[in-house]
Amino acid sequence: MKPTILILNGPNLNMLGSREPSIYGTETMEFIASSCTEHAGSLGLEIDFRQSNYEGELVTWIQQAGSNAAGIVINAGAYTHTSVAIRDALMAASLPVIEVHLSNIYRRESFRHTSYISGVADGVLCGFGSDGYLMALDAISRLVVNTPTTD
Amino acid sequence: MKPTILILNGPNLNMLGSREPSIYGTETMEFIASSCTEHAGSLGLEIDFRQSNYEGELVTWIQQAGSNAAGIVINAGAYTHTSVAIRDALMAASLPVIEVHLSNIYRRESFRHTSYISGVADGVLCGFGSDGYLMALDAISRLVVNTPTTD
Amino acid sequence: MKPTILILNGPNLNMLGSREPSIYGTETMEFIASSCTEHAGSLGLEIDFRQSNYEGELVTWIQQAGSNAAGIVINAGAYTHTSVAIRDALMAASLPVIEVHLSNIYRRESFRHTSYISGVADGVLCGFGSDGYLMALDAISRLVVNTPTTD
Amino acid sequence: MKPTILILNGPNLNMLGSREPSIYGTETMEFIASSCTEHAGSLGLEIDFRQSNYEGELVTWIQQAGSNAAGIVINAGAYTHTSVAIRDALMAASLPVIEVHLSNIYRRESFRHTSYISGVADGVLCGFGSDGYLMALDAISRLVVNTPTTD
Amino acid sequence: MKPTILILNGPNLNMLGSREPSIYGTETMEFIASSCTEHAGSLGLEIDFRQSNYEGELVTWIQQAGSNAAGIVINAGAYTHTSVAIRDALMAASLPVIEVHLSNIYRRESFRHTSYISGVADGVLCGFGSDGYLMALDAISRLVVNTPTTD
Amino acid sequence: MKPTILILNGPNLNMLGSREPSIYGTETMEFIASSCTEHAGSLGLEIDFRQSNYEGELVTWIQQAGSNAAGIVINAGAYTHTSVAIRDALMAASLPVIEVHLSNIYRRESFRHTSYISGVADGVLCGFGSDGYLMALDAISRLVVNTPTTD
Amino acid sequence: MKPTILILNGPNLNMLGSREPSIYGTETMEFIASSCTEHAGSLGLEIDFRQSNYEGELVTWIQQAGSNAAGIVINAGAYTHTSVAIRDALMAASLPVIEVHLSNIYRRESFRHTSYISGVADGVLCGFGSDGYLMALDAISRLVVNTPTTD
Amino acid sequence: MKPTILILNGPNLNMLGSREPSIYGTETMEFIASSCTEHAGSLGLEIDFRQSNYEGELVTWIQQAGSNAAGIVINAGAYTHTSVAIRDALMAASLPVIEVHLSNIYRRESFRHTSYISGVADGVLCGFGSDGYLMALDAISRLVVNTPTTD
Amino acid sequence: MKPTILILNGPNLNMLGSREPSIYGTETMEFIASSCTEHAGSLGLEIDFRQSNYEGELVTWIQQAGSNAAGIVINAGAYTHTSVAIRDALMAASLPVIEVHLSNIYRRESFRHTSYISGVADGVLCGFGSDGYLMALDAISRLVVNTPTTD
Amino acid sequence: MKPTILILNGPNLNMLGSREPSIYGTETMEFIASSCTEHAGSLGLEIDFRQSNYEGELVTWIQQAGSNAAGIVINAGAYTHTSVAIRDALMAASLPVIEVHLSNIYRRESFRHTSYISGVADGVLCGFGSDGYLMALDAISRLVVNTPTTD
Amino acid sequence: MKPTILILNGPNLNMLGSREPSIYGTETMEFIASSCTEHAGSLGLEIDFRQSNYEGELVTWIQQAGSNAAGIVINAGAYTHTSVAIRDALMAASLPVIEVHLSNIYRRESFRHTSYISGVADGVLCGFGSDGYLMALDAISRLVVNTPTTD
Amino acid sequence: MKPTILILNGPNLNMLGSREPSIYGTETMEFIASSCTEHAGSLGLEIDFRQSNYEGELVTWIQQAGSNAAGIVINAGAYTHTSVAIRDALMAASLPVIEVHLSNIYRRESFRHTSYISGVADGVLCGFGSDGYLMALDAISRLVVNTPTTD
Repeated sequence: MKPTILILNGPNLNMLGSREPSIYGTETMEFIASSCTEHAGSLGLEIDFRQSNYEGELVTWIQQAGSNAAGIVINAGAYTHTSVAIRDALMAASLPVIEVHLSNIYRRESFRHTSYISGVADGVLCGFGSDGYLMALDAISRLVVNTPTTD
Repeated sequence: MKPTILILNGPNLNMLGSREPSIYGTETMEFIASSCTEHAGSLGLEIDFRQSNYEGELVTWIQQAGSNAAGIVINAGAYTHTSVAIRDALMAASLPVIEVHLSNIYRRESFRHTSYISGVADGVLCGFGSDGYLMALDAISRLVVNTPTTD
Repeated sequence: MKPTILILNGPNLNMLGSREPSIYGTETMEFIASSCTEHAGSLGLEIDFRQSNYEGELVTWIQQAGSNAAGIVINAGAYTHTSVAIRDALMAASLPVIEVHLSNIYRRESFRHTSYISGVADGVLCGFGSDGYLMALDAISRLVVNTPTTD
Repeated sequence: MKPTILILNGPNLNMLGSREPSIYGTETMEFIASSCTEHAGSLGLEIDFRQSNYEGELVTWIQQAGSNAAGIVINAGAYTHTSVAIRDALMAASLPVIEVHLSNIYRRESFRHTSYISGVADGVLCGFGSDGYLMALDAISRLVVNTPTTD
Repeated sequence: MKPTILILNGPNLNMLGSREPSIYGTETMEFIASSCTEHAGSLGLEIDFRQSNYEGELVTWIQQAGSNAAGIVINAGAYTHTSVAIRDALMAASLPVIEVHLSNIYRRESFRHTSYISGVADGVLCGFGSDGYLMALDAISRLVVNTPTTD
Repeated sequence: MKPTILILNGPNLNMLGSREPSIYGTETMEFIASSCTEHAGSLGLEIDFRQSNYEGELVTWIQQAGSNAAGIVINAGAYTHTSVAIRDALMAASLPVIEVHLSNIYRRESFRHTSYISGVADGVLCGFGSDGYLMALDAISRLVVNTPTTD
Repeated sequence: MKPTILILNGPNLNMLGSREPSIYGTETMEFIASSCTEHAGSLGLEIDFRQSNYEGELVTWIQQAGSNAAGIVINAGAYTHTSVAIRDALMAASLPVIEVHLSNIYRRESFRHTSYISGVADGVLCGFGSDGYLMALDAISRLVVNTPTTD
Repeated sequence: MKPTILILNGPNLNMLGSREPSIYGTETMEFIASSCTEHAGSLGLEIDFRQSNYEGELVTWIQQAGSNAAGIVINAGAYTHTSVAIRDALMAASLPVIEVHLSNIYRRESFRHTSYISGVADGVLCGFGSDGYLMALDAISRLVVNTPTTD
Repeated sequence: MKPTILILNGPNLNMLGSREPSIYGTETMEFIASSCTEHAGSLGLEIDFRQSNYEGELVTWIQQAGSNAAGIVINAGAYTHTSVAIRDALMAASLPVIEVHLSNIYRRESFRHTSYISGVADGVLCGFGSDGYLMALDAISRLVVNTPTTD
Repeated sequence: MKPTILILNGPNLNMLGSREPSIYGTETMEFIASSCTEHAGSLGLEIDFRQSNYEGELVTWIQQAGSNAAGIVINAGAYTHTSVAIRDALMAASLPVIEVHLSNIYRRESFRHTSYISGVADGVLCGFGSDGYLMALDAISRLVVNTPTTD
Repeated sequence: MKPTILILNGPNLNMLGSREPSIYGTETMEFIASSCTEHAGSLGLEIDFRQSNYEGELVTWIQQAGSNAAGIVINAGAYTHTSVAIRDALMAASLPVIEVHLSNIYRRESFRHTSYISGVADGVLCGFGSDGYLMALDAISRLVVNTPTTD
Repeated sequence: MKPTILILNGPNLNMLGSREPSIYGTETMEFIASSCTEHAGSLGLEIDFRQSNYEGELVTWIQQAGSNAAGIVINAGAYTHTSVAIRDALMAASLPVIEVHLSNIYRRESFRHTSYISGVADGVLCGFGSDGYLMALDAISRLVVNTPTTD
């Protein structure tokens, strides 16, 4: 069985394509999901691609990943800057974690310069648009190889 | 078809009437909803009046308003001071937004003096009790007239 | 005799119409004054509409209102952010006070996000352009009804 | 009928036992629940023991406690440090509230040193592991005796 | 000719007696002026007692005192906390200066804990009500004796 | 020989009963001491109950406890917020430490929200009145059992 | 029996006369004590004049004053800026309190601009040298008259 | 008709020559005015040289300059650091603005390091004494040439 | 001619391999350079790989890149957190810029959490070890394709 | 021999003309140098015009100026905001110093509002483009006349 | 008679040897005292070596040193970071002062990075263990030679 | 072969003797170098004494010291307060490090109170003039004895 990577997307990422295209680009979430599926396949990985507007649901999915997945790629959206709960869940999951953002958050409002996720992630990527997800998969595939999984 | 205004209420506003009446008054959420319905009618508007204790549900409703509503009146309650996710959803919706608070938040604890909503709202109203909702409807009806809607 | 509402305007508001129209709109102070007179009439109120560039003159007018007026609508302009003296005068006047701003001050420079007036006002309104004055009259008329005046 | 104490647990507390045992110990949530049930029985109390990863669900349960319970013991987990909504719900509930934390939050990251709950709690307990829940029950039983309940 | 002490009062002090008596007491400005006149007489001093709501007028009076008066007693009211101009005028006047406040400003809002005057005053007095003015006269009479004047 | 618990009380705690009873209750220090003695007996512990207004004396007692006592319960009163010396003494003593406060310090002035003790205590308790001492004894008895003592 | 005023002096005030005379003047503590005795006599008061370098001793004397004295004049010296314990003792004593400083602390290092005493004092005096003590006695004699004492 | 430059001087600048000569030099305001008149003549400019201690009067003069003058040279004195009203007036005037200070404000108290004027000025000059005014005239003459005026 | 990417390394990166291997890994700078050369070849790019301990030399190289290179990958090392000069040079170069760090700087000392580079970079990568350089080349190759170069 | 003025330019100023012309204008460094040479000649001064991207080289040149030059005009570019070393060198040189900036740094990012140079300069000029250098020469020629030089 | 150096040790330094040896080493206070005695002898100095846990006692000893000693070496321990009283006493003593710490306080908690002593000491030494005391004696012997003493 | 100690001096230290003698004394760098050579000889050490105005050159020398020297004495001058690069180089060198300053930096401007070096040094010395270098050699000779070197 191939290792599974949980790819988590936080609030408003389901609106991609129509939401402020000057910042977030014109690609939809579905497009990113299918790009990820294809790229993961070429890396020998499966993905479980999810989006939620609920902090609590994201926490729950991370908890479940602890026993089902081999790594987590997370774009927590707005919760990046406000959620200690997601940070705690990631810390408890004890899995490789890559944080990704479509835009370069350091060029935006100052409240977006602080991330509760970065301090518990292995690596951080921002400003690469949808390519950032594929780069994160590349990176996590190297970490997963070094981390024995349950399959 | 009349333009619809989404009137959103955040956490604990369902407790109005019984919750700290010295701050929030004795009128219930139901009373405010029916006052809004009546007042909207006189302005040629329909309203969609909702309340949720969930940040994620409020985000989802704002996203749906992007295609169904002509404007948003929002009293985000406690999430006013902590939710970047609601701010992002409002920004993405590209609709007129009026922020309303029952009490004058500037006379209360200092953590209530900061609003993530105000920076993306067209207008802000606080301290007018339930009348604030009707004033917000008056204001948004003028903005909706200037903003062609889908009906 | 009808209750009188003192409508106070701080520095530079006399320049409305020509001053930075992208922020403040193209309506003049005279237009706002006559709109207020008309609207107050329909509410059974008289108004005393004034503007001054002098902090001291604004303080004096508020002091006089204590014995002559039934309520105060105030757009203190730049003094909003710097004047403890106006705050103290309003506190001493013991009248209903509505704070109004033409623009949404929370979308502008950070030094405009702090108001010495808000903490002593009954209600605060911003971002509604000249309509904000009429909305403030609506609101104060309700407070004046509940507050017996000298006439 | 015995007075009921609502015992609320915030995000990630369902992972107890497996989550970072050096900080949180090896006891599971189920173990704590059954210890609480037993200890409450000896105090003449019933308990309603719940856990949620959703801020909104915790708010809702606190609202319901306002009419069903005689007191609240709360370990809000990560929401301790970020949730004004839970604070507001507790304030509205008008019940005795004891805040409890398994670990000593003052020995951890500085963002865990601030609690929105403490300012509305009657008492605060931290660093006692699962015993803290039993100590909180002891304390609330004394407050409940002094606060007449609906049963 | 007797040395003259300029006693300056800032904004809203003309409202004494009616303004928030729980903070400022029930004595009027006129009462304080006549108490000062009487007390100054007993000290061999004349007084020039003035009040203005205008920062600019207070500055002008301080400038004139530089050549006409032997010392300044100042209760700058709200301008205490915001006026660099009054500070500069006092520094330029090169006269003994006593700062006085009716209330204990350190027991009030935090923005009243900072004074631009204190750093250029010889002595500071607060919380003694109208007696503070008489105590200030006592103090300045000792400084004036040590400072040769023009009479 | 039974393990001895040093119960330390900081400045002004000797005034309990007469000091601000709305905050600290009407029970005296003597009452708390005898309650502690009785409760400790039931736990198989002896107590050494002391109070001092001197930071230096509290430091000295903690140093002596290092060789004589099995644990420390400390209510450092005002020194909680200002004493690095007490913190250092507790750190050097290498004993179980429980911090206790009669009132909920998080509901009081902001300078009482910071504790130099909490960072070196095993557990923290506040807001439980004199019961807090007994709860602290319960807690330390469990730690003492786990920590072999010299008796 | 005459009312007694406790006059408390904090650390280093015993060095007056020799300590940095450019700041503190050349008068000794003994000179101030005898001036106070003489002046108190003329006001119908007795004084109990003390100095200590120990925070704890100052706390203890304030506690004793609660039952023996009619008011407190305090120059806490360096403890002004660091002692919550003295603040708490003064609050508990429930007596009139006048804070006095020889120098104008607002003209010195910024850490001397904050006083834990001012927030619990009735009045504050600084910059008047040894005369400040006599002025404080004048002030407290008026408060003592209004506050029935035990004699 | 020659273009007119409004040269504005804020509070206390009328005291030049006698005010703290070690900081401000010994030249009087009249001397600076006549130097400016002479220098402006050589540049083909007229000047309107004014001084006021009133923030409101300075605001009014700037408003009038909007239609009468071709540029503004302003030494706002103490209002530099506190006046949003002057900043707003300058922004509304839409004229070239040069900010000038006699002393180097960055070598003085830290509250003089912040200027509300600099953010709306074209150029800033400080530390050049009265020469700074002539340098400012040189600079504004170049801007006025590039900005067509009404004459 | 193939587009050239300037790969810049700041101070101490020449020590890689021997410097704190627990943070920076055991690979040398030479190894990274040759990996980059190989990977760039596969992307149709040439690289110019440099390291300097001098802020000024890094600035100079960035300036030269403005006319010679098609993009910049920069690991500014310690200068990331202190150099406005490098930021300005990158801004002036008007080329695609990718910022890379070997370690996750957000897990280290707080002064490493601020980057002057991020605000002028297109994308930011950290925590991926030497792979980060290859990922940065992947990313810049996509930007270079979209940015016509001089070859 | 004519007095020599060292004109120092910091990092990236060699890029003038091509670097962000909307901020810095289109004139080159060479143009400014030749304008300065010409203007200095008319003032009876020689100039030594230099630019470096190296903080250390700028420090060295300032040290050498101590014995060779009569004054320093410095545009330290980005080092303005970060270099204590240049500040120390200027302080040690004991020469007249004029700080100049092409753009108005107070209208740009907040990290450009702080200058380590201003506190040790005689005068500061910003926002005048290349004319600022000529104005600085005018100003320094007056200071040099008052400061005897070695020629 | 040989000059005497007062060597003062603050709270908890009497616990040296047993207190956290990983930070403070294994040498006792007695060992340091005898090393100092021996080393002072070789420098022609006597020492008066003291330790107290009481801030007040340390203040008193410093006061007495003013007339008895030729210099002070002080390791104020925890009072370093909190005691204005000790700072004031040192300032009043007008003697050479060397501050010493066993550990490098800049590698420890941030509240240990601030010293009230350093600003009034001639020299500061930290991180040298017990050798620091001997180095301080070396340094003070040079200062004492330059400062005539009373013997 | 004797162990070599690298003695590094940062910017402007080459100006010693002529630079602000009231702060830095009248001894030259050459004098300090020869004193160090002589003293090192008596300790069985060789020294490599260097000075640079370039941050990058100091970094390079520290890197080379990693393989050539047995310890580092560093007076980084102004770079003390701004250089993360030097800190990183010292950390990478893994040698004993003593930080030295001629003046007591804690008595000077507040930006000199922070050192990036102190956190990675073994010991810190300031305020001892040129003697500080010799004291640092004494200290490092003890550390070198405990640290086996390559000779």
